[in-house]
Parts: sequence; C-alpha cells; structure tokens
Amino acid sequence: MENFVYHNPTKIIFGKGTETLVGVETKAYADRVLLHYGGGSIKKTGLYDRVVASLKAAGVDFIELPGVQPNPRLSLIQEGIELCRKHQLQFILAVGGGSVIDSAKAIAAGVPYAGDVWDFFARKAEIKAALPVGVVLTIAAAGSETSPASVVTKEEGALKRDIGSDLLRPKFAILNPELTYTLPPYQTACGVADIMAHIMERYFSRTPDTDLADRLCEATLRTVIKYAPIALQNPTDYTARAEIMWAGTVAHSDLLGRGKVEDWGSHMIEHEISGIYDVPHGAGLAVIFPAWMQYVYQTDVNRFARFAVRVWAVEMDFAHPEKTALAGIERLKTFFRSLGLPVTLTELKVGTDRLEEMAAKCTARGPVGNFVKLDKEDVLAIYQLAQ
Amino acid sequence: MENFVYHNPTKIIFGKGTETLVGVETKAYADRVLLHYGGGSIKKTGLYDRVVASLKAAGVDFIELPGVQPNPRLSLIQEGIELCRKHQLQFILAVGGGSVIDSAKAIAAGVPYAGDVWDFFARKAEIKAALPVGVVLTIAAAGSETSPASVVTKEEGALKRDIGSDLLRPKFAILNPELTYTLPPYQTACGVADIMAHIMERYFSRTPDTDLADRLCEATLRTVIKYAPIALQNPTDYTARAEIMWAGTVAHSDLLGRGKVEDWGSHMIEHEISGIYDVPHGAGLAVIFPAWMQYVYQTDVNRFARFAVRVWAVEMDFAHPEKTALAGIERLKTFFRSLGLPVTLTELKVGTDRLEEMAAKCTARGPVGNFVKLDKEDVLAIYQLAQ
Repeated sequence: MENFVYHNPTKIIFGKGTETLVGVETKAYADRVLLHYGGGSIKKTGLYDRVVASLKAAGVDFIELPGVQPNPRLSLIQEGIELCRKHQLQFILAVGGGSVIDSAKAIAAGVPYAGDVWDFFARKAEIKAALPVGVVLTIAAAGSETSPASVVTKEEGALKRDIGSDLLRPKFAILNPELTYTLPPYQTACGVADIMAHIMERYFSRTPDTDLADRLCEATLRTVIKYAPIALQNPTDYTARAEIMWAGTVAHSDLLGRGKVEDWGSHMIEHEISGIYDVPHGAGLAVIFPAWMQYVYQTDVNRFARFAVRVWAVEMDFAHPEKTALAGIERLKTFFRSLGLPVTLTELKVGTDRLEEMAAKCTARGPVGNFVKLDKEDVLAIYQLAQ
Repeated sequence: MENFVYHNPTKIIFGKGTETLVGVETKAYADRVLLHYGGGSIKKTGLYDRVVASLKAAGVDFIELPGVQPNPRLSLIQEGIELCRKHQLQFILAVGGGSVIDSAKAIAAGVPYAGDVWDFFARKAEIKAALPVGVVLTIAAAGSETSPASVVTKEEGALKRDIGSDLLRPKFAILNPELTYTLPPYQTACGVADIMAHIMERYFSRTPDTDLADRLCEATLRTVIKYAPIALQNPTDYTARAEIMWAGTVAHSDLLGRGKVEDWGSHMIEHEISGIYDVPHGAGLAVIFPAWMQYVYQTDVNRFARFAVRVWAVEMDFAHPEKTALAGIERLKTFFRSLGLPVTLTELKVGTDRLEEMAAKCTARGPVGNFVKLDKEDVLAIYQLAQ
C-alpha cells in the first residue's frame, strides 16, 4: 500500500425532497450566486421552480446561466466568468449532471484568475483560488459532485482536457434519487458505465497489498450491477435509483483508490472520442474499457481473474486462470450490451479515419495509464480492438 | 434507504513516517497547543521525540498533559480544560489511541463552555463551540480519529457516557501503521474487536434496501478478519497493520451506515461493564456482541444468514437458514477466541453480582438499540447469556 492523503470534505445531503434545502445551504456561503444549468430539462420537471423557491425563501439572489451542453464548452465557461465578475457573484450553484458541475468548477477557477482559464487545462498555470461551488445533482454518473476534477472541451481543436484541485470540490452536494426518475434509459445506462469505469480505473492497479480498497471497489461494482437493470426496467424504483446514485458518489469520492496507483488510461483514451465526436462519455467508456482490458489483461491475469470471480461471480478455473480472466471481460461487455450501450466504435458511429490522430493527441503529453503505460501505438491498438 | 447527511471532513494522512508532518499540519491551526497523551509508551517508542521535533521545527509551542488512562477519566479532562484556559491554548493535539482522542475532544468541548463539561455527557447542555483537535494515532481501534464522538468515565458513580458533535471531529488524523508494531497482542486483538463492533453496529439494522452500505460493511469486515491473525502472528507485517488501521478508520467514518438506522445496543451494554470493571472496551465487546446476536437473531434470520455467508463464507443452508445464521454467530465467537479474546463474562473476570445494577443503569435513559429495542430485562438477559 502506498502512503496517501484522503480528504473529501463535501457535505452530502441525500434523499427524497432534499433539493428544498438548497437555499439554506447556499446562504451559508453567499447572498448572490450564479445559477448554472443545462438545456432546460430542469424546467420541465419542476426542479427549477423548487430550487428558485428555496433560494428566494433563503434570501439568496441569483443570476442565471443556462445552456451547458454534454461535454461542456469553454465558450460558455468564459461567459460565466464574465457574468460572475460583472455582477460580483460569490458562489456558483450547479443544478444538473457532471457537465454542469464541471462547467461550474471551471467558472469557479476562472473568476479569480487574471489570465485565460484554459491555461489551467493546458497546464500553463496552477489553480490558487476558486469561488465555492454547490450542487443539486440530476444524474448519477460523473461523480463530479465531490471530486476535485473538471473536464472541459475547447471547441477550437476539439480538445477535451481536465483540471483537478481540492479548491474545486463542491462545498455541498444535494442528491435526491427521485430527480433521476425522468432520465431517458440511454442516459441512465451511460451514467452506470461512467460509475463502473471510475471504480475500475482504481481497481486495476499494480500496487500490491491493497485489499480493503479492492474489496470496497468490488462491493460498489456489485451494487451497481445489481441495480442498473432494475432502474432501466422501472425508472421510478426508488431503491435502485438511490443505490446507483450513492454508488456513483462513493465511486468517485477518492475512497476506493486510496493507497493505490490508479490507472485512468481508459478515461484518457475515451476523452479523444467524445472530444471529437461529441458522444456521451459513458458510452465511449463502454466501448473503450473492454478493449483496454483485452489489451492489458496478460500483465496481471490474477487481478483479472479476481475481477471475474468477485465482481461477476464467475467460477474460478484454477487450472486455467486466463480463461476466468477472459470470462470476466466478456461478462462486462455482455452487461454493457444488456443496458443498451454500444461496445464497439462501429456501434458508437465512430469511423476509423481519425484513429491515428486521436492516438497521437491522447499521448501528446506522454504515455497514458499506470496499470500499463500506453504510448501512441498501444492506444491505436486499443482503438482498433474496439472497432 | 433513509435520507441522510454524510459529512466527514477530517483530513487523513496515511502511511510510513507520516508523523513527521504533525508540526506543519498543527501550525495551520495554532501556535500554542496542548500536547495530550497517555501513560508514556510514546516516550519508549521514540514517537514522543519525533512529534516534539516536528512541532518545534514548525514553530508550535506546547504545554503537555500526559496520563490519559484507558476509559478516560473526567478528572484529567477538567485538568486539561484548566490548562488550556490558563495558557490560552488554541488547539489540542492527541497522540495516542481512542482514549487519548476522546479525552482531547472532551477538553476541546469544555474550554469554551462556562459550565461543567459533564453537562454535555449528562445531556444537560449542547456543544456550541470547541477547540480544534488533531490526532497522531497509535492504535487501530476506536475510530475516534474521524468520529464526532467521545466516551468518558466519571469516577464518581462509575458512569461511562458519550457525547457527539460534528464540532469534535478532528481536523486531521495522522495514521502511520508502523506505530502499531509495538502494541501487545491483547491490545491489537481488542482493537480488532472494537473495529468489527463498529461495523456490526451499522450492519445489523432493520432499515430495508441498503445494499451498498451492507456490502461496504462486509468488505471491511472481511479485510479485518483476513489481516488480524497475520498482525498477531507477525506484529511488524506492514500490510496487515496498514489494512487494519485503514479499516478501523473506514469502519467508524460514518460511511458504512449511511441510509440506515444503526443499532449501538451492544456498545451501550458494554459501556456498563468497562465503566465499572475497567476492562478494555474491545474485550467487553467481544463478550457482549455474540450474546447480543444470540438474543436478537430471530428478529431477522435472513440478515444473520447473510452475515454468515458473506462475511464468514459459511455455506447457505437454504432449507434451514436459521442454522446458517447460528453458524455465523459461532464463527464470530471462534474468531474472537482465536485472537486470544474473552467471549464470556467469566473469562473477562466480571462477576454476576452487579448485573442487575448494570442493566438498570444501561437503560436508565430508556431502551437501548434499534435492531431490537432492549429494556432492562432484555439487557439483563444478554448479560446472563454472556456469562
């Protein structure tokens, strides 16, 4: 086990009707806030009205910035930064999913910074200050509600890049599983793939002697695997929605990877796809992760056999552990398919013409991943395996 | 699943040599601190010297208050409160195990309070302010390093009582598993029993639909069960010590019980024993928990069968789930015994003459526990089962 620091101070407020607490929670930080959200589905569901009522009841003024798209764009973030400066807003309230939260975090980092906020993403500057951010979550997926990370796409060059700083962790996150009842099945499924990927990025590690972290990963994966089909079959099953939502937060709260060198190769490889083709990140991960596994599993067959046995209840083939390992990968693929997710680039409608370019961009800052360090040729091979 | 708030902002610094960071971490909060510790074992091991050197290097002045005993006493706490007031100390650094941390928390609550600190324990007053507390942990057991709780014994009347407030959560906790190498086997074993009890108090709940919390409990229990015998056999096995120490913190960090009505009956029942007889809390729990299980398991045989199957790898007897449930309880008892722990009051050298009195004191504020609400007669029956 490696030495580590674990510090996740986000206050999580979980359960039915909890969005009505957003005004009081926000008021503890600011009187004037930016209300940041997406394409307006929160108006259709009535969530917008409840949030606004709660803010008003608590005496919180707000300026609105809607319009966050999946794979949030730099241009809207720059607009948000200007708005905050112009109206002297002191807090950003993100009402939505990972894209809205990531956009809010980027605005939060940009407001007190004199230069271009993209400097942080280009690793030209370090985040030294940020406005506080609060969250009302509407989809279980990204885990951004307690994470220090933000992933943003710069339209020019179709660059999808990330930043991370403890200063960006939301102060509070309100999680009401009922808010996810109205999600279309495909979005629910993409969220599940994202959650599972966050766990697997931590699970597949070469650090020895990390049993508790590994078991916590397995526990969280099994919960998601159990409840995802139930949520798809009955979108208003509270238990299924609640288990998935809580698992999504735990998955990306840092806890599951402490003491381990985490991987994150598949995320980097996927970012090139959703950066260019604007597909849902979770769908991209459903395609890339099994291909990555196929490419790397021989590095540690026992780890993949453990994954198969402990997560998928495959019976261990003690004479042929490799068969067990491969069965686990197959089970993951079958599971993604059963959720209606693509598992090949073809199914994702991503052609083969730009794979070289994507592999080059992905590895432009050096090899990606830690389970196996992957250079351009490796990444290209994984794209090809995923075809 | 019940609605819940999860907010555990303690910064955990985990790994080899991390106690050398204590000065810098403390300096972020105060220039003058109370250095609080126990019977002097930290001087024998050299830990005291390393902590003092780190504080001095960071420019932190300190006043010392050693002498915390297991089952920390109110009188020393009152002494600590006076010391802090007299020297205007602004922070309490606890170097030790649960007793030292609990004593530090009680001092922290008492300093800004005009009345008698016991008022908090007697539920006559509510904690409204507290000095910040930091921790260098020397035993994996109580989980007090991130918890909001403190348990203290008032010598007069042998009253062992608890308080809880988020204001008492330590700001940071430094966890170096190497510091536990020198623990005597019996103390290691008592710590393991305490950790397992913290998980089981959360696991045995009547709240339906809490699968993730339950699986996280099972994962943490299995890790402790795997590594406890290894740590006893080879006290300097870093992996075993690290897994147990990290499990001890996770066990009591609140995460494992979110969404559930937790039980805590066994803790209340045990407190009467260690309050009067001054036995280690963990040893008392090793005696009480199996007796409690035997007394209540019929309330939810399936839950106990799950415990047997998932935690102890007992094969499910589908025709006779009760047999499976009982096998799990037996496995727990056998495990405690294998660690050299007592599993009966006789082995703990606790006589039968005061059981009535203990049962009455335990339930003086009403029934204890939630899995089953236990009144005086129930508690007495559990003491008798534990004989």
